[in-house]
Amino acid sequence: MDRGPFTLTTLGTGAALPARGRYPTSQILDVHGMLHLIDCGEGTQERMRGAGISFQRIAHVHISHMHGDHYLGLMGLISSMHLMGRRKELFVHGPKELKEVVDIQLRASGTYLRYPLRFRSLPHVNGHVVHADEHVTVTTLALKHRIPCTGFLFKESVGLRGLRREQLHRIPQFKRAAVKAGHDLEFPDGARIPNAELTLDPESPRSYAYCSDTAYEPDLVPHLEGVDLLYHEATFTEAMAGRAKETYHSTAADAARIAAAAGVGRLLLGHFSSRYKSPDPLLTEALGIFPRTVLSHEGGVFPVRTRDGA
Amino acid sequence: MDRGPFTLTTLGTGAALPARGRYPTSQILDVHGMLHLIDCGEGTQERMRGAGISFQRIAHVHISHMHGDHYLGLMGLISSMHLMGRRKELFVHGPKELKEVVDIQLRASGTYLRYPLRFRSLPHVNGHVVHADEHVTVTTLALKHRIPCTGFLFKESVGLRGLRREQLHRIPQFKRAAVKAGHDLEFPDGARIPNAELTLDPESPRSYAYCSDTAYEPDLVPHLEGVDLLYHEATFTEAMAGRAKETYHSTAADAARIAAAAGVGRLLLGHFSSRYKSPDPLLTEALGIFPRTVLSHEGGVFPVRTRDGA
Repeated sequence: MDRGPFTLTTLGTGAALPARGRYPTSQILDVHGMLHLIDCGEGTQERMRGAGISFQRIAHVHISHMHGDHYLGLMGLISSMHLMGRRKELFVHGPKELKEVVDIQLRASGTYLRYPLRFRSLPHVNGHVVHADEHVTVTTLALKHRIPCTGFLFKESVGLRGLRREQLHRIPQFKRAAVKAGHDLEFPDGARIPNAELTLDPESPRSYAYCSDTAYEPDLVPHLEGVDLLYHEATFTEAMAGRAKETYHSTAADAARIAAAAGVGRLLLGHFSSRYKSPDPLLTEALGIFPRTVLSHEGGVFPVRTRDGA
Repeated sequence: MDRGPFTLTTLGTGAALPARGRYPTSQILDVHGMLHLIDCGEGTQERMRGAGISFQRIAHVHISHMHGDHYLGLMGLISSMHLMGRRKELFVHGPKELKEVVDIQLRASGTYLRYPLRFRSLPHVNGHVVHADEHVTVTTLALKHRIPCTGFLFKESVGLRGLRREQLHRIPQFKRAAVKAGHDLEFPDGARIPNAELTLDPESPRSYAYCSDTAYEPDLVPHLEGVDLLYHEATFTEAMAGRAKETYHSTAADAARIAAAAGVGRLLLGHFSSRYKSPDPLLTEALGIFPRTVLSHEGGVFPVRTRDGA
């Protein structure tokens, strides 16, 4: 069955002080053509231009926390959207302080946005519904960082059932929506065709979880169970476990342990400390614990696939 | 006579929506080895890395106004300086709203800077002394923009007089400072050697004026008279004079008229609208009015020279 994209693009993989060639955290999740921007470090606009991503297709922005490497690019993006003539509303989900920071800067610059900016402040809990539409439901993950930090779980909506091509002639046009929704087909004379005869299972919904920045936090595991793609920060290797603990960050091994315990499809690493000129040692460390691990990179594109490869 | 550098590096030449390859406004003025950062658009840190400029050598930051393309890179720079272990104080001169914007973000990120951040708010007047030391005096220029916008005039301090090598034997060691400062040499017996016999004139001080962003503002002319290098924004050509007026920006001809009226040494253009893929039409227009005009470019280095070429 044809379905829309559910594809992640990683725009930046650096930590607070990015190494040369790395940029601060920012990702784009394309859900059936609607773009979700996840974190927005300084220079995200430029990274998006480089990746050929149109700003105006972004419908939702999700900001995890108020460390600069995760949000400092937002103000410029909001302003560019305005200057480029945006009229369509933009939803921004983030810590309540983010709204203050944006408002004070709009005021100081004398900017009156020509599009509605809908700000939704995030509670620091697991499972709060950030957004839901016919394509996706976004919920929060309570990460463990020096300041409140929220991850995001994107679950594709369960699709409608597919009509079996060879059965189409038996289903009156006005009954098709009900059948796709899983109802049996009933006739005025009491006859009934069971739904299973007429339809195919919908494709499995895909899911993506974003965990950045966080110390090792096993409480997340039940919320990440069976996720198809897990992005988990991996700032350090185990050799720097003390520094990781001190700064509320994870080692690559920590990330892999979370991935293994939650039985995710694939693990994607990012947020690499500038001390690692190459992120290979982080990958090697994680692979020893969780084999289905990959590294994010600037401009990397990762189509989310279900466990059965759909 | 050997004297320190007085050299401008232009890091970005774009306007609010930079064209590909252009970056928002930011400049570095190296005054005898002490760096002044003038405006700091998003991505300035990266531009500085590219130009091999050490963040920690920056002693003063001057922010002209609260439009994002002139200050959005500051917060990240302040944070990077902190993460890189800065202990030396940093002076930030800018609109009073800038302090609020910085403070609220330091608070939201739970950052306690390890170095003193000295904020000085700028009045919107001509001639207010922003900073003065043995190398330079920085004063304000009241530009004319949609929101209060301040330019900066950097005047090298007049140097001490040079001692004539062949006269050195006549000047007791303990009298040299007084002679360099211009005093005649007096002896206890009442004898006196006139200063002019012992010393050479100090070199002419160099000066640099920064005017961005501003509508055509002839009131600036008396404050710019005889400046060695004038940076003046040139967002549009005359064909867009209406748009320039509406947005409180200048055309290249406006910039050239100001330069001609003030009799400056050289005119440097920047802040080019993204509609000009190449800034050549802006240069051509200015050259017709003021022949000593040059274009700024990303990473451009412009040693400031006095009119007599020193």
